[in-house]
Amino acid sequence: MTPLALTNLIDALRVLPGVGPKSAARMAYHLLQRERQGAARLATSLGDALERLRACSRCNNYSETEICETCANPRREHGLLCVVEMPVDLNRMEETHAYKGLYFVLMGRLSPLDGIGPREIGLDRLLKRAQDGVTREVILATNFTVEGEATAHYLGELLKARGIQVTRIARGLPAGGTLEHVDGMTTAQAYLDRKPI
Amino acid sequence: MTPLALTNLIDALRVLPGVGPKSAARMAYHLLQRERQGAARLATSLGDALERLRACSRCNNYSETEICETCANPRREHGLLCVVEMPVDLNRMEETHAYKGLYFVLMGRLSPLDGIGPREIGLDRLLKRAQDGVTREVILATNFTVEGEATAHYLGELLKARGIQVTRIARGLPAGGTLEHVDGMTTAQAYLDRKPI
Repeated sequence: MTPLALTNLIDALRVLPGVGPKSAARMAYHLLQRERQGAARLATSLGDALERLRACSRCNNYSETEICETCANPRREHGLLCVVEMPVDLNRMEETHAYKGLYFVLMGRLSPLDGIGPREIGLDRLLKRAQDGVTREVILATNFTVEGEATAHYLGELLKARGIQVTRIARGLPAGGTLEHVDGMTTAQAYLDRKPI
Repeated sequence: MTPLALTNLIDALRVLPGVGPKSAARMAYHLLQRERQGAARLATSLGDALERLRACSRCNNYSETEICETCANPRREHGLLCVVEMPVDLNRMEETHAYKGLYFVLMGRLSPLDGIGPREIGLDRLLKRAQDGVTREVILATNFTVEGEATAHYLGELLKARGIQVTRIARGLPAGGTLEHVDGMTTAQAYLDRKPI
């Protein structure tokens, strides 16, 4: 009874993360009923993105060129290599304007239960990159989640074994944070990582 | 820094209902990273649906043909016309196998605050349809929400003024419902709508 083109669209929408059959149907009706132009733009953008985006051969981030703008920028500090999990993390680092080095994007984090091992996060490429003779410090900026921490630990061990200087971004109270409102783990870490002033 | 094709995709994903900039970015990365085939299928399905689906000229539901399968089916009871808000409601009615008549899909409900008035729900077409000489009863099956009720009331008045027999689907305890667990409004309605046995 539902026309085939509609059934196909509802099925296809289910590739979106967290979208089940009911949301997919709701999305399909919304697009057909109220967002036809937007839907057409979405179809085109999807095709374009799939066709034009590839992994930058140096940092692994999405790029339309063989080497992305950041990696190709001679004004970046090429001796610093910051390792992040996802492109969004890279963007957050950039927004600070505090970091001027280069990046390596893992496109994930080690997660054996999800079948994400060293190969999936491009470990070989990262190790080769870190040993290119230009990199003098690798900054591990994976998240402070269980998996992000495990990934940082694993990468740290491998990099140190190759004589590469490795650092980890700091944990502690957030900017504007108060002891009264911060959780105990964070305060404990802030105490343990205290530094001389 | 973010490549154009990626920015465009993230922007385009925001036409989906309830998707803000962060979810859109998450969706884009998910599609590019793990669902490239699904993303390609989504692009195609969107294009197909936009091109092939139109409103059935009789019931207003989505159809790939001028008149949809249901409306064209000679074995349906053409004297009964059930008015529903959305295609999903039509599907729910069909799943009961209790109704064998035809439908009219409003593609919404009266909602003046959202700018949805009589014209947007195809009132003229519904009235014309109801007076085609074939229809002998219009069954209002809009939802029992404030807007669905208002829509049913409005349509009911107009249809009755034209001498058309109008009914409203029943309210009461759900199948398997117990007085102990049902809300007071429902129980009150079940009492008021009691019928002789």
